[in-house]
Amino acid sequence: MDAETKRPWRATMLSIFPEMFPGPLGMSLAGRGLEEGIWALDAVDIRGFATDRHRSVDDTPFGGGAGMVMRPDVLDAAIRGAGGTGPLIYMSPRGRRLDQPLVHELAAGPGVRVLCGRFEGVDQRVLEAHGALEISAGDFVLSGGELAALVMLDAVVRLLPGIVGAAESLAEESFEWGLLEYPHYTRPQIWDGRAVPEVLLSGHHEKIRVWRRRQAEEITRRRRPDLWDRYVAAIDVSEG
Amino acid sequence: MDAETKRPWRATMLSIFPEMFPGPLGMSLAGRGLEEGIWALDAVDIRGFATDRHRSVDDTPFGGGAGMVMRPDVLDAAIRGAGGTGPLIYMSPRGRRLDQPLVHELAAGPGVRVLCGRFEGVDQRVLEAHGALEISAGDFVLSGGELAALVMLDAVVRLLPGIVGAAESLAEESFEWGLLEYPHYTRPQIWDGRAVPEVLLSGHHEKIRVWRRRQAEEITRRRRPDLWDRYVAAIDVSEG
Repeated sequence: MDAETKRPWRATMLSIFPEMFPGPLGMSLAGRGLEEGIWALDAVDIRGFATDRHRSVDDTPFGGGAGMVMRPDVLDAAIRGAGGTGPLIYMSPRGRRLDQPLVHELAAGPGVRVLCGRFEGVDQRVLEAHGALEISAGDFVLSGGELAALVMLDAVVRLLPGIVGAAESLAEESFEWGLLEYPHYTRPQIWDGRAVPEVLLSGHHEKIRVWRRRQAEEITRRRRPDLWDRYVAAIDVSEG
Repeated sequence: MDAETKRPWRATMLSIFPEMFPGPLGMSLAGRGLEEGIWALDAVDIRGFATDRHRSVDDTPFGGGAGMVMRPDVLDAAIRGAGGTGPLIYMSPRGRRLDQPLVHELAAGPGVRVLCGRFEGVDQRVLEAHGALEISAGDFVLSGGELAALVMLDAVVRLLPGIVGAAESLAEESFEWGLLEYPHYTRPQIWDGRAVPEVLLSGHHEKIRVWRRRQAEEITRRRRPDLWDRYVAAIDVSEG
């Protein structure tokens, strides 16, 4: 596609705290990309779709219990009214866990529409009616979906062409090999009595490459047996 | 401890973007808790500890490669100068994954000191010298540690006494049973031709409790076999 006519990747955020966006993503590289039109952001206030004079978006849960639940009729109106493009995502600890393959998938699409829940959660029927893709930032509970959504956007936006300068920088980081990242060292060469590993000073590019790969393997094996098992399983034994 | 003399839980954030804090945590319940002194936040600019006239915090990596690495001497000065209390945490995809037990652990302590990396990462030696606790928000790559840190703070702060009103609301959510959460329903009773499950209208509290537990078990079994296996393994077979 012609770069000049390409539409920006678009994030449409539905929240009762629209002022949380872009928040930290208005700064740094993501913020510059937003100004330059590499991506676009719409923050839509769910309260604008409430129909009573109190602008209520929530009500008590059927069956009792603590907390309030966001109403399906109000959320449905907000989803329809917000527009946007790409899958409708609901940030929830019950969802598919965000990982780097999913981040790549979202970055390759036209954008996302993200429903950010508050209170106890949202009415189940609106998720079913819209076939929402539930995504979880991790196995922890947040006060709302907004920060989870910001994390997801940060991960996606940095992969958009034109955001991060060196493609090499993207290729060598954690998970792109299926491994955690090797350790980094910079000046001073000796700090606090601690020296930089000698191989890194050797100028021998092949040795450095092999050392880094070994370090990445070793740290993955020790810290993340789950990733290590997958890495080992993927080795093609027919290769040699 | 006397509630009146208790020190607030304290978050000391080290970043080259201190203006990202409190960001979204300045709003909603966390924001109110900050105003009320239930927790305290210091955002420390790492650049303030640079020693050259360009206020450099990074340098090229030994061994070559794309990107820049944050200098150990500058970070060490920032860590020492920032003060604060609690463990020194480095947000990194190589770290222990943030989960609800770790969130509870951090909330029970006096606070956290959080180093937010940028660029390719930080010099390994400063992490070793300070025995940093590496924590990962998940298996994805962010443009810096700030958003991961905000997510962690949100998860922790909402557990502090006085932030979320009903303790019951905390007890019934995802992971507190080791299960994902059951679905929620609120008014209208019929929406888009979809009815609320009848049991929730029965007024029979015991039936509702059992139904919700079954729903939580079923969604966990289908969506998260890993959590399900742990849940089943923890069932005490000597009970009956």
